Amino acid sequence: MTTSTKQSYERNDMKSESNNQSKTLLPEPTLRRLPWYLAYVSQLRRSGVETVSSTQIAKEICVDASQIAKDLSFVAIRGKTRIGYDVAELEKQLSDFLGFKQTHKAFMIGAGSLGGALIQDRGLMQYGLNIVAGFDIDEKVVGKTINGVPIFHIDEIKRQQALYGAKIAVLAVPVECAQQVTDRVIEAGLKAIWNFTPYRIKPNKEIVVQNTSIYAHLALMYNRMRE
Amino acid sequence: MTTSTKQSYERNDMKSESNNQSKTLLPEPTLRRLPWYLAYVSQLRRSGVETVSSTQIAKEICVDASQIAKDLSFVAIRGKTRIGYDVAELEKQLSDFLGFKQTHKAFMIGAGSLGGALIQDRGLMQYGLNIVAGFDIDEKVVGKTINGVPIFHIDEIKRQQALYGAKIAVLAVPVECAQQVTDRVIEAGLKAIWNFTPYRIKPNKEIVVQNTSIYAHLALMYNRMRE
Repeated sequence: MTTSTKQSYERNDMKSESNNQSKTLLPEPTLRRLPWYLAYVSQLRRSGVETVSSTQIAKEICVDASQIAKDLSFVAIRGKTRIGYDVAELEKQLSDFLGFKQTHKAFMIGAGSLGGALIQDRGLMQYGLNIVAGFDIDEKVVGKTINGVPIFHIDEIKRQQALYGAKIAVLAVPVECAQQVTDRVIEAGLKAIWNFTPYRIKPNKEIVVQNTSIYAHLALMYNRMRE
Repeated sequence: MTTSTKQSYERNDMKSESNNQSKTLLPEPTLRRLPWYLAYVSQLRRSGVETVSSTQIAKEICVDASQIAKDLSFVAIRGKTRIGYDVAELEKQLSDFLGFKQTHKAFMIGAGSLGGALIQDRGLMQYGLNIVAGFDIDEKVVGKTINGVPIFHIDEIKRQQALYGAKIAVLAVPVECAQQVTDRVIEAGLKAIWNFTPYRIKPNKEIVVQNTSIYAHLALMYNRMRE
């Protein structure tokens, strides 16, 4: 584990955490803002708007116009003076850049309540995540399909990885087995874990970990509501 | 909109954003780490472990032991020298503090793919979020129930809010109507919005907004995988 990994662990789990950040070119705050711009320009395109200025985006998104121009220059997008950005072009470039146009094969690890729900969310597919199979140990779901996606026993993961070639594991297992399952997922050859558990998994290899603990967000919201 | 609101908008959406942060007593990074400690101590309790030191937690969670002791002191929890923390007590205090023991009534706004999936996630109930009703405009779901939860037309929201007294709106609608629906939700008297859309909603009143754009997290993961 490198120092940079260690540092990334000490940051909060609302941010991205990755075990190979040393080669990062794009600032993470930029990467976090790009999907907002995409959501806005997609909406403009659907409304028939053809061009947009960074000032307009700034007003809508509440980010400085100069910051927006800077962010978009990372994606090699430049606006024209007094005209602004071509909306359709900007949408395409952002979507490409963010990886939403490619299809990424993924395994759902844990096909219980949250895992089963995520398998049924068609939104993930729109953003390039194709869940091709699920894994569980519960005999009530193993051997069945959810939304057409086959659910295998976790013991099958290595064999299925060889067949499907999935690179991403979406982790939605109980907290108490999160680490053990992480080890198996890595051993099976997957390269990234999207961790929906509130558990801080510790990969034993250099893989990408993205923590998305929706329940931690709930705690933040409850706390703000009390104030 | 206050200056503090503006600032909160300019931060990233992986962090909490709230429109009434001026009274915040607890540092947000602390609030983000507490659910990690809770997940770990719950696991210890289930394994029959009775006491835990901050050094042990530090090793497990990859956060400095001194930071952990400081974080826990905000929750008014103190360990005993050479013994550490009582696991059961720590779990109870953390869970109480984070608001997971209380039940918070919520409306699901948008009962499509993601909204329908979230209604079916029993995990939310375990963390204190009780989705009592859903709202949509699609006649295929309006008038039906999902997992026992009735789905009403969005035009019904004000009347249903008066009946149910829900305070939280979970927003899972298409991007293009996110702002319009936000305005209606606030007008109906809800006090907090948990925004699952990638759209930067702008509330016209001082309410709590928690952004959880899971698709933005996907983009972060794809980017790290390419590196």
